[in-house]
Amino acid sequence: MKHVVAGIDIGGTTTTVGLVDATGHIHAKQTYHSGQITTLPDYLAQLRRVVTTLAHQHGAEIEAVGVGAPAANHRTGTIRASNLKWAYGIPFAEALAEDYHLPIALDNDANATAIGEMHFGAAQSYRDFILVTLGTGLGSGIVSNGEVIYGHDGLAGELGHICVDRNGRDCGCGRKGCLETYVSANGLKRTVFELLAHRTTPSPLRDVSYSALSARQVSEAAKAGDAIALEAFEQVGELLGLKLADAVAHTSPQAIILFGGLANAGRLLFEPTIRSLRKHQLFLYNPDLPILPSALPQADAAVLGAAAIAWQKIRKSDHVLL
Amino acid sequence: MKHVVAGIDIGGTTTTVGLVDATGHIHAKQTYHSGQITTLPDYLAQLRRVVTTLAHQHGAEIEAVGVGAPAANHRTGTIRASNLKWAYGIPFAEALAEDYHLPIALDNDANATAIGEMHFGAAQSYRDFILVTLGTGLGSGIVSNGEVIYGHDGLAGELGHICVDRNGRDCGCGRKGCLETYVSANGLKRTVFELLAHRTTPSPLRDVSYSALSARQVSEAAKAGDAIALEAFEQVGELLGLKLADAVAHTSPQAIILFGGLANAGRLLFEPTIRSLRKHQLFLYNPDLPILPSALPQADAAVLGAAAIAWQKIRKSDHVLL
Repeated sequence: MKHVVAGIDIGGTTTTVGLVDATGHIHAKQTYHSGQITTLPDYLAQLRRVVTTLAHQHGAEIEAVGVGAPAANHRTGTIRASNLKWAYGIPFAEALAEDYHLPIALDNDANATAIGEMHFGAAQSYRDFILVTLGTGLGSGIVSNGEVIYGHDGLAGELGHICVDRNGRDCGCGRKGCLETYVSANGLKRTVFELLAHRTTPSPLRDVSYSALSARQVSEAAKAGDAIALEAFEQVGELLGLKLADAVAHTSPQAIILFGGLANAGRLLFEPTIRSLRKHQLFLYNPDLPILPSALPQADAAVLGAAAIAWQKIRKSDHVLL
Repeated sequence: MKHVVAGIDIGGTTTTVGLVDATGHIHAKQTYHSGQITTLPDYLAQLRRVVTTLAHQHGAEIEAVGVGAPAANHRTGTIRASNLKWAYGIPFAEALAEDYHLPIALDNDANATAIGEMHFGAAQSYRDFILVTLGTGLGSGIVSNGEVIYGHDGLAGELGHICVDRNGRDCGCGRKGCLETYVSANGLKRTVFELLAHRTTPSPLRDVSYSALSARQVSEAAKAGDAIALEAFEQVGELLGLKLADAVAHTSPQAIILFGGLANAGRLLFEPTIRSLRKHQLFLYNPDLPILPSALPQADAAVLGAAAIAWQKIRKSDHVLL
């Protein structure tokens, strides 16, 4: 029998289950539609069918279950995502424990990815690092001394909502000028539109509407030498580096790892970010502090993160038994 | 025999030794001049005379030694303060261990005070909190899950050097616009001088030179209703609250504790700080997050902090032996 954990990535429309061994090898993976489900029993029944079938087909013994989901709280075991009605306010980790009689771990996407990097990715040699996820918004997982910093309520590590400018851009959280309104796929797009208004430079981006523009298009324009797109990446990197310098002054990490769609822009994002971090960092800290790309394959990162928190849970239980 | 630890507070001109029991009671305390000492053996010899005499006079058995000092590093056991020549770059904790054959703990002032608050002060019921020391500068100790966050190099928790304004006031660290150039006794004074230039309001503070002005004078002027002094406290509190909201987004503490000279200004500082924190905090977090004054008597806080890290060291050693 293969010894694996079930890494479960819950999204708004689909759920993905992966059977993952202790080395991070995915023995089986299945994605199915779960967006139409409205009650916990229905969600659990569908999940069990998939998990049982996968384990049977691949001769695997599941030793723990790990769940990554948006707005999941490691401390309370709940998921408070408005688009997951079957889960809202329900003690989901507890329900899984009753169903599977196995160690259960649950965490939000960013923290799960951070633990995934520590077990299987770019942070395998680090005990102190910060993971920043750059998707539509900006998420983060802060690891100190080998442990995610959860805070008393499980809500630590919300670097997307530190303040860049109190009078700045409207944020989905109801405030103004949060970091993610500048540094994220959406933030990049907003910066492009500010620059299109500010500059007179010609640019193919002038022919694209706000609704139609994607971060990938900005990235492609920048690679083709478009001045507006290049300046937008400069500004995004400058702000990210500035705020990472502040984050370093909080927890003094060995490295910072950038994950997600916007991080795939590579040098376009990394170069201005690193330049800005070096410029703004307090002299006490490592002047060569590494800023690294994620080393998890993007398509499997969520499942690997969920699996990593399950493996971590097993190791901690073993430790307690010693 | 009384079971105590030696809590040692090392400053630029004096050293204070206190014999402190596990409840925080100081059985004996002595302060002596140590500023003229230039070599480690001389420092150790003088310290040993004081410690031995105190223990003998008070019938106390010393079980561990804790040291609090500026720029002390818990991870390396060194003190890198430019005004402590006998210590610079020397493994001081190791030297103490050889001398005393006892558990030795060493940490910087802010971290030692944070642990002091946790053992004997305002943080006895907290495992997640941030201590901010407001003296000439701004120091901080961040506690997560009952442990100080040290970072990989022992240099975490430098909130005095997070950035308020990249083009702002000159900071002693060589950069511009660090938090402590605005929020500290010195920052308050700088704000007063900016306001004296900006406003035409009459104020007795117009008769005091920059060199002569103290934070206490500003505090007294504010209590007497002086508009410039009151506005200065408003601005300092507003910026402190804004940056504490960012700190909360990093580690989600249960409480924030303000310590030191400027914190003694009481309501003048606390009211605008709390108002600003409430305004700038992300909706996820406790809307009534307590901001509390230190509960350590100020004259003994340094010795109690040093003693607390020694008691913590003993408890951890015991734990390992179980």
